[in-house]
Amino acid sequence: MILELAILDVRPGEGAEFESAFAEAKAIISAAPGFDHLELRRCLEDPHRYVLLVGWDRLEDHTEGFRGSADYQPWRALLHHFYDPFPTVEHYEAVLQVDRKAER
Amino acid sequence: MILELAILDVRPGEGAEFESAFAEAKAIISAAPGFDHLELRRCLEDPHRYVLLVGWDRLEDHTEGFRGSADYQPWRALLHHFYDPFPTVEHYEAVLQVDRKAER
Repeated sequence: MILELAILDVRPGEGAEFESAFAEAKAIISAAPGFDHLELRRCLEDPHRYVLLVGWDRLEDHTEGFRGSADYQPWRALLHHFYDPFPTVEHYEAVLQVDRKAER
Repeated sequence: MILELAILDVRPGEGAEFESAFAEAKAIISAAPGFDHLELRRCLEDPHRYVLLVGWDRLEDHTEGFRGSADYQPWRALLHHFYDPFPTVEHYEAVLQVDRKAER
């Protein structure tokens, strides 16, 4: 599983509207082939900042499949206008993990 | 659950050594009260970059408990010399999530 990571800086005062738009947009990305899971989280140190974490089966499911699909246009329209600056998106492969629950 | 997020830029040429040190250091953080899970992942776009994601029951389990513990000193000694620049660490609270497997 490849993890997409994007730090999202949302225009001041638009956080509630962004979260509402994301609640709608999540159905779009969740339907993409190769989608595994997503989390949207809000930064405790900076209330305008979020992180989006999306698990994909393969890198190309995101970079070619989702971004090249017709469904990417309504996703962009719902969300991209909230971002300032426009985010850098990176992808990460697993090195190691520890799960407390799994070890008990 | 609060997610600690740190983008780790490791000195060029020290990636393998860093991963080996982290495999040792993970036992230290995993034993901290309030630790839930961690993932270390390597960036596909920049091989010197990693992301560390650590789940904590409460923010203070990291910022006060782990960082204030005696165990933080060997953690620092094992890992901090690999980072350039020294990373910014942020914490994120849940807004929403989607799990494909849970929906099937």
